[in-house]
Amino acid sequence: MPMKKFINDPKNLTKELLEGYALAYSDKVKLVSDKLVCRAQPKDANKVALVTLGGTGHEPALSGFVGQGMLDISVAGDIFAAPAGPKVFEALKLANRPAGVLFVVLNHAGDVMASNIAMQMAKKAGLNVKMILTHEDIAPGANVPAADKRGLVGCIPLYKVAGAAAEQGKSLDEVFAVAEKYNNNMATLAVALKTATHPASGQSIFDLADDEMEVGMGQHGEAGTGRSKMKTADETTDIMLTQLLEAVKAKKGDKVFVMINGAGGTTLMEQYIIMRRVGQVLEQKGITLARARVGEYLTVQEMAGFQMHVAKVDDELAALLDAPCDTPYWGES
Amino acid sequence: MPMKKFINDPKNLTKELLEGYALAYSDKVKLVSDKLVCRAQPKDANKVALVTLGGTGHEPALSGFVGQGMLDISVAGDIFAAPAGPKVFEALKLANRPAGVLFVVLNHAGDVMASNIAMQMAKKAGLNVKMILTHEDIAPGANVPAADKRGLVGCIPLYKVAGAAAEQGKSLDEVFAVAEKYNNNMATLAVALKTATHPASGQSIFDLADDEMEVGMGQHGEAGTGRSKMKTADETTDIMLTQLLEAVKAKKGDKVFVMINGAGGTTLMEQYIIMRRVGQVLEQKGITLARARVGEYLTVQEMAGFQMHVAKVDDELAALLDAPCDTPYWGES
Repeated sequence: MPMKKFINDPKNLTKELLEGYALAYSDKVKLVSDKLVCRAQPKDANKVALVTLGGTGHEPALSGFVGQGMLDISVAGDIFAAPAGPKVFEALKLANRPAGVLFVVLNHAGDVMASNIAMQMAKKAGLNVKMILTHEDIAPGANVPAADKRGLVGCIPLYKVAGAAAEQGKSLDEVFAVAEKYNNNMATLAVALKTATHPASGQSIFDLADDEMEVGMGQHGEAGTGRSKMKTADETTDIMLTQLLEAVKAKKGDKVFVMINGAGGTTLMEQYIIMRRVGQVLEQKGITLARARVGEYLTVQEMAGFQMHVAKVDDELAALLDAPCDTPYWGES
Repeated sequence: MPMKKFINDPKNLTKELLEGYALAYSDKVKLVSDKLVCRAQPKDANKVALVTLGGTGHEPALSGFVGQGMLDISVAGDIFAAPAGPKVFEALKLANRPAGVLFVVLNHAGDVMASNIAMQMAKKAGLNVKMILTHEDIAPGANVPAADKRGLVGCIPLYKVAGAAAEQGKSLDEVFAVAEKYNNNMATLAVALKTATHPASGQSIFDLADDEMEVGMGQHGEAGTGRSKMKTADETTDIMLTQLLEAVKAKKGDKVFVMINGAGGTTLMEQYIIMRRVGQVLEQKGITLARARVGEYLTVQEMAGFQMHVAKVDDELAALLDAPCDTPYWGES
């Protein structure tokens, strides 16, 4: 069966997608040195810069969030693959400034390896960079060591709060502290329904029976922990939200930010139905929904499923989530 | 085979999705009288209001674009079905004001029938409403009568330019003139790759062979005009863009706005690759890409495919497309 995707040569996917993206949003982003997606209008040099890295194939993540109030540079890898360490170093060098650089890395083996190489090079070159690792996937259990937990969609609201703090002129230590506070108060859990096709190889990235779903599956088809028969939207929400609220230790009177992130093939209609149940459960528990977002932020090609993300937020984090920003896929103030 | 969607009772889809949407974006929208999605903070009564209507199942369209600078009220129907005429009249009555109401209707049989009933009731009640019909699908040919052409994703940038004109305090005649200028200078063409499942019945809405695509297919599976073997992204773009540029009579020196609207199951990666080719073709022809948007605006469940939308814009329309707005799915200024 031929792959049903609008592509040209599978070898040129990353090059062509980045060129098309930079063309469409040329008022906000520009492509530098093939793989660095940078702000079209660079931020004031006296403010902290934010840099991240990650494979393509997850659009709009990660490069869709470059712009005022979020990222300064996103280093793109090939499909589902980390960019090379020296390429990441190039971004850190380009972003470097007296105010410093916050470097956000999702916990995936390739990304961490490239980041460690880049950080060694940055140290040698005397750059002013602080790195933060996201690792909020609770599929392996909320209490396993951070190193064993993957970074999922939570990186995106983390860019938002750290980016807003940077725009306010906060120091690198202060921006790092805000990012770390969000990092320590977030949890994400994924569920998969249908596989996706790797756009270069044409192969499915995992298998699931026609009547099954899998809670905890990673964003590259990494095995989860809860394969079961299909459940209703409300049942699925209850299973996932219970674990997430426990993981962030949310209790009566607390405020949370909730994000439903579609994986690609799950409709917004379904995501709204999930969100409705989230609201009912929070109300029962006396927890306030401070703010929510529903849509496709970090996708896995046409995979059906979603990630549910919960963060316990205080007034500072809630205000930073609300601060104005202007990026192609997170824009409203 | 069980339907792989996160739903509860198929009879409650519309109710549950609207409740979930209003909950997630309660700072921007509120649900009134079950089916009217209204701005959370109503617009100044001395400014023209914008009202639209349409079936659900196409999220984020149409209700995702209610908010400052775009729609005041979106009347939601059931899945793929128009709301009833009296419900639409209720929205017109709620929006009515001395400044007047612009009522935007997509050319689909059910929507037009409900709108005609609502307009008769509005006339009897003495409301100040002007209706505009969108009909930019060029699948049946660019030169067939407007009544034979469906309304596709072009309604959304039309809400944007008319909504921006309304926010500027323009009169109903002036807002209508802006909307009509956009309406007369736009064209859209769709292409389908894979069918979608009706979320209430669980049935596929059309059939396509594993190696086929269809240009011109409507957003409910209405037959198109160009079934063919799968083509590359660049070949598909060339076929569609040629017809669209002819339809809007774009020539060297003109400026265009281009929107690639994913149908649901086609990735942003693919849409960027399409957009890259759009940029190359425009450059060859000496036509300026004034502004672009890429993403899911009006979807058809998990259908794979996209709509390519082109509008010839002058300085006034380009500025209105750029004007600030704040809605859940079109927010950046």
